[in-house]
Amino acid sequence: MSEEARPAKNGKKADSTAYLFEQFRVGRGCLGYVVADRKGGIAAVVDPEAGMVEPMLDYVFEHALRLRYVVDTHTHADHFSGARELKAKTVAKVVMHEKAPASCVDFRIEDGDRLWLGALPLKFIHTPGHAKDLVSVLLPGRILSADALLIGSCGRTDLPNGNPTRQYHTLYYIYRSLPEELSVYPGHDYNDRTHSTLAEEKRSNPKMLFASEEEFVEYMERENPGKLSPVHQLADALKANMA
Amino acid sequence: MSEEARPAKNGKKADSTAYLFEQFRVGRGCLGYVVADRKGGIAAVVDPEAGMVEPMLDYVFEHALRLRYVVDTHTHADHFSGARELKAKTVAKVVMHEKAPASCVDFRIEDGDRLWLGALPLKFIHTPGHAKDLVSVLLPGRILSADALLIGSCGRTDLPNGNPTRQYHTLYYIYRSLPEELSVYPGHDYNDRTHSTLAEEKRSNPKMLFASEEEFVEYMERENPGKLSPVHQLADALKANMA
Repeated sequence: MSEEARPAKNGKKADSTAYLFEQFRVGRGCLGYVVADRKGGIAAVVDPEAGMVEPMLDYVFEHALRLRYVVDTHTHADHFSGARELKAKTVAKVVMHEKAPASCVDFRIEDGDRLWLGALPLKFIHTPGHAKDLVSVLLPGRILSADALLIGSCGRTDLPNGNPTRQYHTLYYIYRSLPEELSVYPGHDYNDRTHSTLAEEKRSNPKMLFASEEEFVEYMERENPGKLSPVHQLADALKANMA
Repeated sequence: MSEEARPAKNGKKADSTAYLFEQFRVGRGCLGYVVADRKGGIAAVVDPEAGMVEPMLDYVFEHALRLRYVVDTHTHADHFSGARELKAKTVAKVVMHEKAPASCVDFRIEDGDRLWLGALPLKFIHTPGHAKDLVSVLLPGRILSADALLIGSCGRTDLPNGNPTRQYHTLYYIYRSLPEELSVYPGHDYNDRTHSTLAEEKRSNPKMLFASEEEFVEYMERENPGKLSPVHQLADALKANMA
């Protein structure tokens, strides 16, 4: 899981290794991230599940980072966010999309906005469908895709604030337009995979290969309530994360 | 300007001629539209400039249409909207994006929403950049692109609520992903052209041919305040249209 910064060797390749990047995993396949500018040590955490708070703080302190932002990519319906706890334990500010209802949010961002960790840009792309307040986070060489794009799949669209047409736009307009060489780091993976590439997802992800919006929407509306299992602690998680 | 409905001849070609579609033009190159389902005569007007209200109403009455919706694609900064007057003179409801501030709006739509004129769908795609509340309207075979995509250009991004990064997303993620065979009907044209095709715009529109977001944004930030002329009645138009 560890992927420490390596010194930049040349122009293009340098980008994605020129910053600290660490993936955290807890039970049920939730993935969270710590990202930091190498030079100034200014850091952000992305999607801290409640169980990640202590390991993330350990990582931050061990690497002498200054935690400035806690980003929740959306209002999670399937796990408890650790954002509020991180905010209480540090000076970090909570960042979410402008549509997020949570009262603990300090900065509400929109599509196209950027946060800077020193010289490192985090760019937000509004990619709703799984949730209306979902943003993907674009880093040099990587995209943190949350539930907008999972490895070989995408997030379900039948939960509160889900919408299969908007998910179609997200996959077929936005993700199809992004560069193939991006590494994709999702918000969940249930098969112990850490990441994929956008080239691979464009080639083989069945959710990106429907012939039309109508077929995609029909599939999502049929699959979701019929075949997917009920979400663990849905009501409790939503209640806590929206508060 | 007139393009009356013709009977459908075959499967694919039928779509864009199976409904009434009329373009209206007033001074300074503002373009507005009347769209109606042929069967039931249920109609919508899109982007009625104040001077179009009477000609549009004449058209509606002459064709025995039932005007149900008045769509403003965004809060116009360069002309006075006739939406409020149309609402006062008919039973039509005003439709705008959820971010539109105007108090006369009855239905606030989001990306991916559809309105139906009988069997005819109007699909809204959120395409901000020129204005944060700008939606393009997708019809069978046509897209009403407002200021998101002009023939050979795109709307400026330096007016209130403009944002060049979001305009980049609109052109390079959304418009690049839409089918080439769409006819493009913009909200303005200063050279008496009525429409274009998306294939032609993808091929030759300089605003769609930048190599990177950075170059596009830099160009828009340099061109807009420096070279473009001041907008006619900007403050008055915004004040009226936001009210």
